[in-house]
Amino acid sequence: MAQPEYELIYWPKLIGRGEFIRLVFEEAGTAYTDSSRQPDAIPHLISFTSTSNKGDARNPPVLACPILKHGDFYISQLPNILLYLGQQLGLVPDGAATHALFHMNAIALTLLEGLCDEAHDSHHPIASSIYYEEQKDEAARRTREYLSKRLPQFMTYIQRLLEAETSAQHGPWLYGEKLTYIDIVLFQCIDGVEYAFPSAVKRLRESGLYNAVFELHQAVMQRPRIKEYLASERRNKYGECIWRFYPDLQEEVLMK
Amino acid sequence: MAQPEYELIYWPKLIGRGEFIRLVFEEAGTAYTDSSRQPDAIPHLISFTSTSNKGDARNPPVLACPILKHGDFYISQLPNILLYLGQQLGLVPDGAATHALFHMNAIALTLLEGLCDEAHDSHHPIASSIYYEEQKDEAARRTREYLSKRLPQFMTYIQRLLEAETSAQHGPWLYGEKLTYIDIVLFQCIDGVEYAFPSAVKRLRESGLYNAVFELHQAVMQRPRIKEYLASERRNKYGECIWRFYPDLQEEVLMK
Repeated sequence: MAQPEYELIYWPKLIGRGEFIRLVFEEAGTAYTDSSRQPDAIPHLISFTSTSNKGDARNPPVLACPILKHGDFYISQLPNILLYLGQQLGLVPDGAATHALFHMNAIALTLLEGLCDEAHDSHHPIASSIYYEEQKDEAARRTREYLSKRLPQFMTYIQRLLEAETSAQHGPWLYGEKLTYIDIVLFQCIDGVEYAFPSAVKRLRESGLYNAVFELHQAVMQRPRIKEYLASERRNKYGECIWRFYPDLQEEVLMK
Repeated sequence: MAQPEYELIYWPKLIGRGEFIRLVFEEAGTAYTDSSRQPDAIPHLISFTSTSNKGDARNPPVLACPILKHGDFYISQLPNILLYLGQQLGLVPDGAATHALFHMNAIALTLLEGLCDEAHDSHHPIASSIYYEEQKDEAARRTREYLSKRLPQFMTYIQRLLEAETSAQHGPWLYGEKLTYIDIVLFQCIDGVEYAFPSAVKRLRESGLYNAVFELHQAVMQRPRIKEYLASERRNKYGECIWRFYPDLQEEVLMK
């Protein structure tokens, strides 16, 4: 069998930023090499991010992963990779005008800011390089703000997107009339936040204010290829990555 | 005189995320309406970001500013706006292939993450909605990490970009042989960080490790239109925005 033309370079064994990219490949039914599953995953990754890597004639060096390699071209930065793959794999509206791509990119950036980056910073508000146990007090304070202000603010915005004329009128999708890569971004964001903060998400779910958001999450989860992927051993477990479950950071503990 | 076709919607009176967009227009010599300078700046901005705004048939609603309006099309998210304007205003390499645009977008995202977003979070590690004075201890701890680890890490990466084959071989530019929008991003990032942390940046400058970075900052500052803009009353002052100078957050105080 030929080598797949796409390769994902990411840290092994985790659901992290790389997961968005895996889900996009899975939905598209596109073969890809997930080098995080190979024995040399970490040295391979470091060969890209090391300060001794100066890029090549075609590619500037990258700072961090995830990295997407497509033939001899490679790029970093999650929203950038998703924008590229969305177009490559047809996960943008059919005949999408340039304007639509910029709208979608704005939505992807906003979802990732609010439900991925800020979800991470809630348990690591001082620095990623310091253990959670050494920034527990600050994490508790930041998470209290996140759950009471930021998370509802982002959820309200997503619900607003789904009520807008630019979202699907005959389906659950965020932009245009079919599933696009930003729906997959939304799925993983909600899935991750629900893993990290189950009681807070339960409360949001039961409020009835964000029904369209949870329906979209469900609709993506039921896509045949996504469903099969989520049930497979290819789907990693949550762990020490972006979305983490800490008993001390649950809202019933923080609000006491 | 005809109304300019572009409009920037941003908070008044500050150098913040909007400044990158202003600098791109200034370098390109393109007329733009800066609605932050108009008497109704704040109600105008809120008419976009309010939860009652559901977008229109052509545009999904936005969560936050900066917002760029171009005719009846509008978008949010700074790196997205810059990617759009870079192409619209010719601030990308001549005849740039799609691949080049994705490389540039990755670099812009990385610069903004390390020298804009993280510079902001150094003084507001708990929440933007809480006063600095109420998160001073956490800010001191986060800034110590930022100045000792993250800032040098990003500076090293930028120096590495400038030593790469993809950067200008006959000029100071980050990508290709002429100035592009990412050089302007770099300028404002360094300018902001130097305002916020003058002694730390002095030390980095004197280390000699990042000469190409500081030369690029200087080269952008000397562009005729940028130079004229920086000296004009159109250039706002630093203040309560992304990059802030707090005596307690200077490295000579933090490292004592």
